Amino acid sequence: MTGPRYTPLVAALPETVPFVGPEELERRRGVPFAARLGANENGFGPVPAAVSAMSRALGEVWKYGDATSFHLRATLAQEHRCEIDNIVVGEGIDGLLGILVRLLIGAGDKVVTSLGAYPTFNYHVAGCGGVVETVPYLEDHEDPKALFAKAREVDAKLVYLANPDNPMGSWHPGAAIAAALEDLPEGCLLILDEAYVECAPAGTAAPISADDPRVIRMRTFSKAYGMAGLRIGYAVGHMNLIRAFDKLRNHFGVNLLAQTAAQAAVQDRKGLSTRVKEIATAREQISTIARDNKLMPLPSATNFVTIDCGFDGEFAKRVMDGLFELGCFVRMPFAAPQNRCIRVSCGPADELETFSQLLPIALKHAMGSTGRAKGEP
Amino acid sequence: MTGPRYTPLVAALPETVPFVGPEELERRRGVPFAARLGANENGFGPVPAAVSAMSRALGEVWKYGDATSFHLRATLAQEHRCEIDNIVVGEGIDGLLGILVRLLIGAGDKVVTSLGAYPTFNYHVAGCGGVVETVPYLEDHEDPKALFAKAREVDAKLVYLANPDNPMGSWHPGAAIAAALEDLPEGCLLILDEAYVECAPAGTAAPISADDPRVIRMRTFSKAYGMAGLRIGYAVGHMNLIRAFDKLRNHFGVNLLAQTAAQAAVQDRKGLSTRVKEIATAREQISTIARDNKLMPLPSATNFVTIDCGFDGEFAKRVMDGLFELGCFVRMPFAAPQNRCIRVSCGPADELETFSQLLPIALKHAMGSTGRAKGEP
Repeated sequence: MTGPRYTPLVAALPETVPFVGPEELERRRGVPFAARLGANENGFGPVPAAVSAMSRALGEVWKYGDATSFHLRATLAQEHRCEIDNIVVGEGIDGLLGILVRLLIGAGDKVVTSLGAYPTFNYHVAGCGGVVETVPYLEDHEDPKALFAKAREVDAKLVYLANPDNPMGSWHPGAAIAAALEDLPEGCLLILDEAYVECAPAGTAAPISADDPRVIRMRTFSKAYGMAGLRIGYAVGHMNLIRAFDKLRNHFGVNLLAQTAAQAAVQDRKGLSTRVKEIATAREQISTIARDNKLMPLPSATNFVTIDCGFDGEFAKRVMDGLFELGCFVRMPFAAPQNRCIRVSCGPADELETFSQLLPIALKHAMGSTGRAKGEP
Repeated sequence: MTGPRYTPLVAALPETVPFVGPEELERRRGVPFAARLGANENGFGPVPAAVSAMSRALGEVWKYGDATSFHLRATLAQEHRCEIDNIVVGEGIDGLLGILVRLLIGAGDKVVTSLGAYPTFNYHVAGCGGVVETVPYLEDHEDPKALFAKAREVDAKLVYLANPDNPMGSWHPGAAIAAALEDLPEGCLLILDEAYVECAPAGTAAPISADDPRVIRMRTFSKAYGMAGLRIGYAVGHMNLIRAFDKLRNHFGVNLLAQTAAQAAVQDRKGLSTRVKEIATAREQISTIARDNKLMPLPSATNFVTIDCGFDGEFAKRVMDGLFELGCFVRMPFAAPQNRCIRVSCGPADELETFSQLLPIALKHAMGSTGRAKGEP
């Protein structure tokens, strides 16, 4: 008996996943992590207004969520001083990226991203038969000039740029991104992923009009707002592009509680400001822990700190694996030379204390297993 | 300046949506509906254990949901007496259908469904460039024999069959579906959509092994469990097919609260049984209201009743539009001759009372506007 007949594209796709989640890693270990600092979640929790709003709406989940997310989009349009038609709400940036890639990318179509940048974008591109072209980071920063030059060279339909960047935590002033658009080739759309922008210094959000047809901007409630598990984010862009999402998106796909929570969250300025301060404090604490262990924390405009472990990717992986074994979940960049680092998400003091206690052990173990001592590369 | 370069497929897709949601219809009316009986939601509300479980988990939404939905799948595997590897959890059946179609259907590939069956399946097929072939209903029932014969004739990769059926509410004994599989052609996968099966008589769930490579079975928490707004459902099928979902699905796409609620719901047998009884009572009430108005309610194994309005689709549409105007949201089948009916979802007594009061007015209006009187077609 033959099985289902997959498309040739699907038959050729690898059975890999962009990330193995912490729960799966815990099951493999057989013990839960003492510190969950690897997925760039917000361990300080959801903003309070979101929790209150959900608590009041629990009995309403028998209804499908509004397929147009009308009230949320209206609120977001006020925030962004744009029209409701400039905004589409989706199941997190991951979900929106998936639809956007399907709108533009067919077999052989090119996209450009930084080598080692967000792998879920690449996953979606592969799922459509697209081709990922990369440029290296420039001193641990994404390099708009190089990205846009490569886009011109390969005739890319999409270029992906995160500002601030994940996994490096680095950022450009928003004005620099806006200025760099001059070099974006015609017919190439920039995905500006601003997932972490609420954690960044003022001026990091790029001053780009919602109506600019060259750019689609992505935002999420998963990071500063602390609502990753609700799966809700949005994109801001030209109304023609935003309307095109209606051709492919799962119209009733956005959770009712997520819509309710997100609308309350946008209006909870005090809650957001508290979380942003907690994140800033945690960044300082993580950086101090790194320095106390003679490691170099990189500057960060996000809810995580990327720490240069001083050697190569193999060494950083040993540090990360050592932390896993000891009960601390962190991650690391995928590509050299950024993979000399580990990436530690901001979290509450007790989890950072755990990290602080385990890091020296993991480092000692990582060094011992190569015979290398710190300072003797 | 050129805009984004869409794929040729996307450029050719119509800007239509499978359903306009009730909130959008309310905004067009300018007034909320007094009775929300159109989307086959469960107006009796979510099963109690789901609400309690969510209530305890609200503070946890800063975490991404488990990307593998491990605990929920383990619970569901026990329910279905299969392996965890036979189950994939997704963002409702709509979400799962979207992935499944992308796995199998490329440009020009054929699928078979009943004329007037669930439009969201057709929407996903169109989004992949597939071709929808249809067979008519047979006395208001889906017709497995005709569906499978057409699948053989057109060399379809997928055939869609809902049991019980939406929008007609009709059903086949599960054993009849299993027996009909003999005629399913090689290389054609049957999607058996059992969204409403909890509301159906015992024996409606088809006795088909989870490992049967010819069938993928879809279930949801949106109907009997009353959790449509949470967007969670699952598919049961051969482990090779289930594993293929990992090539395209949004791995962290399933809401954490939805996973928590679904796991509690599966174990809330009393809650489910209460909802199923409430639905059965409401079906009787809707049927009585129909008969009181000299209309013919069709037998139903679902959480709605489809009512034959006695004339054609134009007449039924006038009844439905009349109910809209008066404040009662119902829907109707899309295709003739099933579109002689309106479809009324089960709901609490006060909403059915509203329906009962408004239906005679809507009928009178619908008849008046053609000059036809009941009994004088």
